[in-house]
Amino acid sequence: MKISFKNDYSEGCHPSILEALTQLNFEQQSGYGLDDYSKNAAQLIRNKINDQKAEVHLVSGGTQANLIVISAFLRPYESVIAAETGHIFTNETGAIEATGHKVHGIPTENGKLTPEHLQQVLDLHTNIPHQVKPKLVYISNSTEVGTIYSKQELADLSAFCKSYQLYLFMDGARLGHALTAETNDLVMEDLSKYCDAFYLGGTKNGALLGEAIVICNEDLQPDFGFHLKQKGALLAKGRLLGIQFQELLIDDLYFDLARNANEKAMKIKKAFEDKGCTFLTETFTNQIFPILSQKQIEKLADKFDFYVWKKIDEKHSAIRIITSWATTQEITELFVNEINQL
Amino acid sequence: MKISFKNDYSEGCHPSILEALTQLNFEQQSGYGLDDYSKNAAQLIRNKINDQKAEVHLVSGGTQANLIVISAFLRPYESVIAAETGHIFTNETGAIEATGHKVHGIPTENGKLTPEHLQQVLDLHTNIPHQVKPKLVYISNSTEVGTIYSKQELADLSAFCKSYQLYLFMDGARLGHALTAETNDLVMEDLSKYCDAFYLGGTKNGALLGEAIVICNEDLQPDFGFHLKQKGALLAKGRLLGIQFQELLIDDLYFDLARNANEKAMKIKKAFEDKGCTFLTETFTNQIFPILSQKQIEKLADKFDFYVWKKIDEKHSAIRIITSWATTQEITELFVNEINQL
Amino acid sequence: MKISFKNDYSEGCHPSILEALTQLNFEQQSGYGLDDYSKNAAQLIRNKINDQKAEVHLVSGGTQANLIVISAFLRPYESVIAAETGHIFTNETGAIEATGHKVHGIPTENGKLTPEHLQQVLDLHTNIPHQVKPKLVYISNSTEVGTIYSKQELADLSAFCKSYQLYLFMDGARLGHALTAETNDLVMEDLSKYCDAFYLGGTKNGALLGEAIVICNEDLQPDFGFHLKQKGALLAKGRLLGIQFQELLIDDLYFDLARNANEKAMKIKKAFEDKGCTFLTETFTNQIFPILSQKQIEKLADKFDFYVWKKIDEKHSAIRIITSWATTQEITELFVNEINQL
Amino acid sequence: MKISFKNDYSEGCHPSILEALTQLNFEQQSGYGLDDYSKNAAQLIRNKINDQKAEVHLVSGGTQANLIVISAFLRPYESVIAAETGHIFTNETGAIEATGHKVHGIPTENGKLTPEHLQQVLDLHTNIPHQVKPKLVYISNSTEVGTIYSKQELADLSAFCKSYQLYLFMDGARLGHALTAETNDLVMEDLSKYCDAFYLGGTKNGALLGEAIVICNEDLQPDFGFHLKQKGALLAKGRLLGIQFQELLIDDLYFDLARNANEKAMKIKKAFEDKGCTFLTETFTNQIFPILSQKQIEKLADKFDFYVWKKIDEKHSAIRIITSWATTQEITELFVNEINQL
Repeated sequence: MKISFKNDYSEGCHPSILEALTQLNFEQQSGYGLDDYSKNAAQLIRNKINDQKAEVHLVSGGTQANLIVISAFLRPYESVIAAETGHIFTNETGAIEATGHKVHGIPTENGKLTPEHLQQVLDLHTNIPHQVKPKLVYISNSTEVGTIYSKQELADLSAFCKSYQLYLFMDGARLGHALTAETNDLVMEDLSKYCDAFYLGGTKNGALLGEAIVICNEDLQPDFGFHLKQKGALLAKGRLLGIQFQELLIDDLYFDLARNANEKAMKIKKAFEDKGCTFLTETFTNQIFPILSQKQIEKLADKFDFYVWKKIDEKHSAIRIITSWATTQEITELFVNEINQL
Repeated sequence: MKISFKNDYSEGCHPSILEALTQLNFEQQSGYGLDDYSKNAAQLIRNKINDQKAEVHLVSGGTQANLIVISAFLRPYESVIAAETGHIFTNETGAIEATGHKVHGIPTENGKLTPEHLQQVLDLHTNIPHQVKPKLVYISNSTEVGTIYSKQELADLSAFCKSYQLYLFMDGARLGHALTAETNDLVMEDLSKYCDAFYLGGTKNGALLGEAIVICNEDLQPDFGFHLKQKGALLAKGRLLGIQFQELLIDDLYFDLARNANEKAMKIKKAFEDKGCTFLTETFTNQIFPILSQKQIEKLADKFDFYVWKKIDEKHSAIRIITSWATTQEITELFVNEINQL
Repeated sequence: MKISFKNDYSEGCHPSILEALTQLNFEQQSGYGLDDYSKNAAQLIRNKINDQKAEVHLVSGGTQANLIVISAFLRPYESVIAAETGHIFTNETGAIEATGHKVHGIPTENGKLTPEHLQQVLDLHTNIPHQVKPKLVYISNSTEVGTIYSKQELADLSAFCKSYQLYLFMDGARLGHALTAETNDLVMEDLSKYCDAFYLGGTKNGALLGEAIVICNEDLQPDFGFHLKQKGALLAKGRLLGIQFQELLIDDLYFDLARNANEKAMKIKKAFEDKGCTFLTETFTNQIFPILSQKQIEKLADKFDFYVWKKIDEKHSAIRIITSWATTQEITELFVNEINQL
Repeated sequence: MKISFKNDYSEGCHPSILEALTQLNFEQQSGYGLDDYSKNAAQLIRNKINDQKAEVHLVSGGTQANLIVISAFLRPYESVIAAETGHIFTNETGAIEATGHKVHGIPTENGKLTPEHLQQVLDLHTNIPHQVKPKLVYISNSTEVGTIYSKQELADLSAFCKSYQLYLFMDGARLGHALTAETNDLVMEDLSKYCDAFYLGGTKNGALLGEAIVICNEDLQPDFGFHLKQKGALLAKGRLLGIQFQELLIDDLYFDLARNANEKAMKIKKAFEDKGCTFLTETFTNQIFPILSQKQIEKLADKFDFYVWKKIDEKHSAIRIITSWATTQEITELFVNEINQL
């Protein structure tokens, strides 16, 4: 069996989570998110972002988080602006449109939106009421192509959104990886300051499942529970989510795990660089997109699993290598050796 | 008050329609489309397209026709391919997405889709079940920028669609104008042959309101009435639609009216050409898009109403001039004179 | 051909409407409801209800009005309370549920809701967020079984709604008939006072088509046009609706037409009473529901068309006789004679 | 802290599940349900129901299972028939209506539907296309009030559904408890034989989360994955569900756990019976609804948590006592002692 670098959800979860689940297993708790662990996890997040008024809701996965947040925030005629590479635009089976909302897909170079992108969409939607009303800006950090937002970039987007009454929502499926990247200058508090809502991804960073939706804009908090239940997102045993986030947030395990993923990716990146490879995007998180020849790809694929991401020319393609909290030093070295021999 | 060339729905309807409405006014008829006139109009259409198995449904407007046809034909995860200029993509307040379906907007030069466009979308949607499944191709004839499909172009699109199990649906809000354009080589029978469904637009060609949806693909016919009722499209007095289409289709009044619009547009086009103007798109229907200087636009706007369609450069814009069944020789000459004096 | 008492939309429209359409036919007007006639009709309604802040929107039909108003007013988890006989609950192909909202159908004796009915629904929906949140009360006046609300009944409902933050919405497809019934004590001003929104039905009272939605609650007015367009309800030639309502509202033609329908129904009702018939509901509007023997029904059906409404016992059923603005004295007498001979 | 008999999801999961999760934690597996454990769990279910053509999909919870199955099976105008006590009708925040479908709520004595109930709904929905088309019958086994379907009852329902082209769908959130009740005569194979689809509930019978949807009707199987993804139900780490169902199904642990819950409930039931109590419904599963005086309820509530379910008269209410896989002999005896002292 090949070693897989196809994604960051190939293994189970960090062992300390299993230990906590086992230890707390027979405590009787209230259902549907009213258990002590979920409450405690929420409080840990509020402390982390230094925003005691934020509301936290734990759900199972990213598509679920995206579709519930977006459909809860918008009126039927309002639309979403996203990068064309945005997960909701391309890889969620039209989940947002299925709730009734158009998503404007914006071509970008690096998966990141700018105020200029937003202005263009607004300029094209002035024919009231014959056009949708752009209302929510969806960004991912880190993005689907591994890049991250700087504090200035996020502040600029946020300022633009505020001045045009747009909501800013950050998909944080890989937020841990963004915040622990060597080039990152954002801190958790910034998220509350600049975003109306965001989520903290567990599934791709050491949990069995789970994303923690954080609603910072108080106007958007009321009645959110109805949306969760109506969309089938309210787990009877909410404790499963609560215990995991509690465990990940105590002592910053969450960030340690993300840092491990990034470091391993950077080691692999360096090996490719040493071979003279170029990359599809410049990344400092757990995803790298080296451009290789067909021959090199075949050679690597003998022992390792990964996605061929994008054809570059007749003889070259970019591949995606993705590391995780579970990627060991040993596996990384095996892979680096293989790269060295290309 | 200025004379308007802003759209083709500024006046009421052809006088013979008002006469028919008056004459038949006190006949008692069944409601909800079961009246004799609606049945007769349907039969006239079936004869015209030489397809006795086609089903015809009369509805109030184009957005209504589009949203009902598309949502009736598709399963929740299926999507629509349209030109970026397509009416459903840009000017219907997200009506299609509001029924749950993603619309892929394709940039085109002339508002028309080709098999190559479709192939590109299919190639980008192979990650089952993480992506929507493209299933219906929406085209407009004439298009929103005044162009028309040739028989070969429609045949090619249709063949592609059939080979990939895609439905082909034609928005015919201005179908009359397309079929009577001097460069047209399509006939009504071709529509039934090449499309799964299309509609014959009344609102923009002499009726008070009304579009005649024609479903040629028998697999898509059953239970369509439920969709009409559920979306609020079944008029209690369906006779209002039936009488109008009956009147328009007897003696080909429908095509005479469209031809009038086209001829008047071509006279105006020639006047612009004589002045040395170029055009945004090359059209032979009732919409023309001459590119004028800011000064020329201001001059024309003194006496006439029209839309400034698209900025070309700092000093020039394309305007849209649109004629209709009601555009008289007199008004046309007035406008041509004005152009001559630019 | 039999004379039909099956519904109140068997004929076209009042002749003065056709005359107005003909007279104004070639005036150029703005599209999509921005024409002078629609604006004028709206102003006439505002004057009538003595509420200059009300917003008026003209649409094609009742189901369309219901689904747009209700989906525009509610958030996704909010529900509607209606009588089990309510048109939206039983005869609109699930149009409201199709926009995502549950409708609670309440059994009633006479088609009318009371505060007690509302209280019962509220009492059963306290398990937040596992249940829908009842938010809008839908009533019809006259009701689907011909009854009407008294001023006191409407005031009581309104007070209850206000105290529980429920919206009160009146389906006025037959509002003219309600307000001109001999037992009625409501005036147009009351509608604005007690309802958050209502509509004035044209289709069943002399128009070719058209319902005038009136939004009295200012909080519910913003952005309503987006909903109209998205649901396909914005007619390009809005003038068709504007001219009709203008014509109906000048000189109170609307109420004269409804009064004619009621008077004819009351004459027929008296004929049945004289024969000793009882009725399914006690009505003073244009719908009556006499209970007849199977033999009597067959006899009447020889020359007249009507619906057999409800089986009462093995040998008896209630039939529905419905009159309209177009029901003449002559036809009424023919029918009364036939009843006398039963 | 009081001992809770409020629900069957107060504890975590059966310890063997945690052991399996721990043991398999670092195996690399494909995501999104393509892992070996999910495939194996599906095969175990197919064997159990003796239907190798059945398709199995593992999802997180009951509301999610219900809304995805129902919206995947139905066309927009089709509706669902359910008991008024049915979970989808009353306790899922309108999740089914939110996907666009009306649910007919049928009053029943014991939470169970019969062919007569279905016939009544069909008889009331013959006005095509003005009414919804009833198409899917939703039943729960055990029901929300603890009762179960006999083989004859299920066979009768199934025969009726087949003859009227209705789908029969069984909510099996507590299917284990139904099948291990002392009065049960259904076996797993019957489910495949009589139902178009059903699900096997994990959440309420020893799993951390998870319901196994089984689609027996082959016509309803294609493209189901798209619905799962679009509704946010496809877990990246599907292994979490696969491992649990694998563990529950090997050696029939699933049924042993349900049997424990039932036996404990029956012991408690007997204690109430010995006290002379009557019950709201006659149940042999893990839910019992004894009717107690207000005083008795207060006494019991001193040490135990439970729901007061329904007011019977001024002085009496039915309470709900619910046991689970985790209810021990010790706790049961404590409770029985308390009952004995009432």
